[in-house]
Amino acid sequence: MEKLRISLAQINPTVGDLDGNSEKIIEYIKEARGQGADIVAFPEMAVTGYPPEDLLLKPHFIKDNLEAIKRIQEETKGITAVVGFVEGGKEIYNAAAVLHNGELSAVYRKMYLPNYGVFDEERYFKRGKEPVIVLLNGIRIGLNICEDIWYPEGPTRTQAAAGAELIVNINASPFHYGKWKVREDMVAKRASDNSVAIAYINTVGGQDELVFDGHSMVFDEQGRLIARGRSFEEELITIDISRQSAVGSRRSEAQDEGVRIIELPAIKNKPASSALPEQTEIIPPSTAEEVYKALVMGTRDYLSKNGFKKVVIALSGGIDSALVSAIAADAIGKEKVTTCFLPSVYSSRESREDAEAVAQNLGVRLIIIPIQETFESYLKALKETFAGLGEDTAEENLQARTRGNIIMALSNKFGWLVLTTGNKSEMSVGYATLYGDMAGGFAVIKDVPKTMVYEICRYINASKGREIIPLRVLTKAPTAELKPDQKDQDTLPPYELLDSILKAYIEENMGLEDIAAMGFDVAIVRKVIRMVDSSEYKRRQAPPGIKITSRALGKDWRMPITNRYESY
Amino acid sequence: MEKLRISLAQINPTVGDLDGNSEKIIEYIKEARGQGADIVAFPEMAVTGYPPEDLLLKPHFIKDNLEAIKRIQEETKGITAVVGFVEGGKEIYNAAAVLHNGELSAVYRKMYLPNYGVFDEERYFKRGKEPVIVLLNGIRIGLNICEDIWYPEGPTRTQAAAGAELIVNINASPFHYGKWKVREDMVAKRASDNSVAIAYINTVGGQDELVFDGHSMVFDEQGRLIARGRSFEEELITIDISRQSAVGSRRSEAQDEGVRIIELPAIKNKPASSALPEQTEIIPPSTAEEVYKALVMGTRDYLSKNGFKKVVIALSGGIDSALVSAIAADAIGKEKVTTCFLPSVYSSRESREDAEAVAQNLGVRLIIIPIQETFESYLKALKETFAGLGEDTAEENLQARTRGNIIMALSNKFGWLVLTTGNKSEMSVGYATLYGDMAGGFAVIKDVPKTMVYEICRYINASKGREIIPLRVLTKAPTAELKPDQKDQDTLPPYELLDSILKAYIEENMGLEDIAAMGFDVAIVRKVIRMVDSSEYKRRQAPPGIKITSRALGKDWRMPITNRYESY
Repeated sequence: MEKLRISLAQINPTVGDLDGNSEKIIEYIKEARGQGADIVAFPEMAVTGYPPEDLLLKPHFIKDNLEAIKRIQEETKGITAVVGFVEGGKEIYNAAAVLHNGELSAVYRKMYLPNYGVFDEERYFKRGKEPVIVLLNGIRIGLNICEDIWYPEGPTRTQAAAGAELIVNINASPFHYGKWKVREDMVAKRASDNSVAIAYINTVGGQDELVFDGHSMVFDEQGRLIARGRSFEEELITIDISRQSAVGSRRSEAQDEGVRIIELPAIKNKPASSALPEQTEIIPPSTAEEVYKALVMGTRDYLSKNGFKKVVIALSGGIDSALVSAIAADAIGKEKVTTCFLPSVYSSRESREDAEAVAQNLGVRLIIIPIQETFESYLKALKETFAGLGEDTAEENLQARTRGNIIMALSNKFGWLVLTTGNKSEMSVGYATLYGDMAGGFAVIKDVPKTMVYEICRYINASKGREIIPLRVLTKAPTAELKPDQKDQDTLPPYELLDSILKAYIEENMGLEDIAAMGFDVAIVRKVIRMVDSSEYKRRQAPPGIKITSRALGKDWRMPITNRYESY
Repeated sequence: MEKLRISLAQINPTVGDLDGNSEKIIEYIKEARGQGADIVAFPEMAVTGYPPEDLLLKPHFIKDNLEAIKRIQEETKGITAVVGFVEGGKEIYNAAAVLHNGELSAVYRKMYLPNYGVFDEERYFKRGKEPVIVLLNGIRIGLNICEDIWYPEGPTRTQAAAGAELIVNINASPFHYGKWKVREDMVAKRASDNSVAIAYINTVGGQDELVFDGHSMVFDEQGRLIARGRSFEEELITIDISRQSAVGSRRSEAQDEGVRIIELPAIKNKPASSALPEQTEIIPPSTAEEVYKALVMGTRDYLSKNGFKKVVIALSGGIDSALVSAIAADAIGKEKVTTCFLPSVYSSRESREDAEAVAQNLGVRLIIIPIQETFESYLKALKETFAGLGEDTAEENLQARTRGNIIMALSNKFGWLVLTTGNKSEMSVGYATLYGDMAGGFAVIKDVPKTMVYEICRYINASKGREIIPLRVLTKAPTAELKPDQKDQDTLPPYELLDSILKAYIEENMGLEDIAAMGFDVAIVRKVIRMVDSSEYKRRQAPPGIKITSRALGKDWRMPITNRYESY
């Protein structure tokens, strides 16, 4: 045999949905078999979804996942499937099952467990100790899992040294913008450094704050890309990998040491290989495009996987709520999106017009509910207690929270999920009202810096070929409209400046001096750092949102609230 | 020399307050020296406070902590101090510095890093590899840190085998009720199993959701308790430890292998040892007492370490808000506590009387602000949108959120921190309104099951010798009073039953079948599990609260929101 036909099943599992995930895996096994694949590979922990977090502490969850693997195993007649699951009992492993012709023939246990950023794998798993190679029709295939491939000294090297011709690396690698390129470069290098072909299969879909972008890929033993999967879509990628002639000579008995090699029995009566389905060439997306797609998929999956059919969004007339509405309409359809304009005396005519234009451009329903009377009723109730005191942020927050209360009442009455509209710049410095504009179930653009909000809106208008986000919304000065003539820039540095400082502080862990040395005014840097540090309590009570940068304000940002360290 | 005088400095550091913590450490060094101590031991990471979480990812934070250790070092003339800090640069260690007579003489790096429950130490630290013994005046002292002592095969065994006569184990071991006994039993066994005296020094104080209870202790080489520190108080415990005569014969060169032994130079002109300060015998507290003290200290420290001077609490007339008010008054003084009764048409005369009685018993200010008009103003604003629909939880939540908005307005106007009053039973099953009664900065009794709320209230009345919590509050049926004749038990199983099921599900990770097998109705267990699972989104937006059980709904509860696993 001179070639191997491999299918990469880039699927979208749901955390905890053992039955649904198993059914999906079985479907894809059938499809791969129909395409004449010798082997089909599924993502890391495809059976459980990723990350299942503390579900992994439940013994009955582990047991149920093992039963699911058994059901899948029975459906692998005539094919080999590599399926991510959780192995073990009292001690558990992040593992890959090799299901071959109806049997569980081998298990590989992940050796490198990520425990940084959004990852907590040392919390749950024991580390595997043994690289595994399976011998399929005389071809040596090394298995490994996600993090394993990132280490030059990891199992890929050992497996290649033991004669592996192909590495099947299964992943649940979360998205952030630009990461696809880092992955491609790394896998290409790993392939050429070890003279081994690598099939990198990634999961796809949204899970709480994470989005997985798919973007599976196959490199030949010289590090040349020979197949690339789509981003943010389920897909079965099937290709033929030619066998290397040079590999036999690389092998020696000595180098097998420490590697478990399992020979898979030949499958009898296997149908002759059919023609390959045609592959379309996938062009990697621009930053604005990939972030937009991540936000759409993250929103769609949060809704569908949690059983929500419709959403409600408070439109302010500003750019953030316009963007969130556009994302929602794209994610679940315009007829399932309700927008709501909640004017006070400080709301301008322009804001109302712009909110109406956004709703009209998107074709979504708009409800208008004035908040002024309710706001005044609060002031009356508080009059005696507040006697003799001037107006301040208490009154501003009261308005924002009146809006929050109304939008939540719509949510409760109609079962609509509230999408909040705060961006990363605001979330970072605490320029938001807890229980006000922060009230809701999902914070779609929580990790999108304000400058990128503009960029994505321009991308939407360009890609749709018409004005979805009204031009005035793209050009007017941002305002919270909680007091007369208020502008964001009264309180915050210009967004271009703010976002650069925030990136250095949040994503790069830089301190005051180093950030100032990049060319920023030290007083402004100090002010920004102070605002970030002192608004931790707000972020702690914020709804989850989609991670799109290398460090979001979620699982990869674990700052104490009680914190007297002054980085400024 | 036949004895060693050791001081255990059970201090309360603040996370990130490198200057303040250093000053406190230096003060205690002076005090220990004044008491003639040969050696004074401080808690784990005393310099940084524990846990500093992602502050540890900032290179400048690590650098500043190293500078703090240098300042402390200079203050150790004439004494030896063991101080917890963070060692390293690019790679960091949870470490103990031995500061001896003005020099940094040795560093021990923690070998066992906890990465379960509330702990994330593998996220930050490298593991130490080498047990360390310091030789002080001819006495072999083994150093280790917190988790290290929990493993029978850990460094204590190696150090004892290498002739250690005393183990100094420094800790930041978080409280949960009953844990002191587990610790005492474990340390006693470790001491007697290895024939080595153990000085166990723990930190004290609150840090976000964690409370450290102190309760330091010293065991002799037969596992007999020879000193016990107070709970929830700073303290310097100084005792003389007699030298074991048997130790010399235990030692052999071979057993030193892998242990680094560092001889500390003799200190010249050391003043003659003075008489020991008298120690009072410490009696361990009852469960109600220790939980109450944990809640008081946790609340006090959250306020003082975050710069809050006063609090506001919404009194409902029920037991939860009564307890939180009592805790607050004890923590910061009655004159700094404002309570607020926010009646609607559903509020009973009894509720008002009971709220007034609580305020009166505690001597705290009570403000009464009716919410009815504001609530009706919302209904009016929503009338058109809600036309033709019946009343449901939307209207109930509107009331709770109107209260939330008012209490937050008081907070914003006067700078009072809002203490929320939800208990663990409610938080578990989602019997609470997001942005309503859940609105606030600190959730004092978030981890206290309802049945324990009663227990603690009875303890308060008994210990104060008068009715702080009114008797009627202790006996009437709990109600949310959001619709006519509403009782908690219309929606929830009886609390005795509910709390037992919740403990099995949350603290023991048990599933439906196993819990039912304990003797519970399977339909009730299923209902409870379903309520817990489906209210994850609420908990994600809840304020932090004090952990008092073995598993709180905080850092040690990392459940996905998107989760289709049905444990029921």
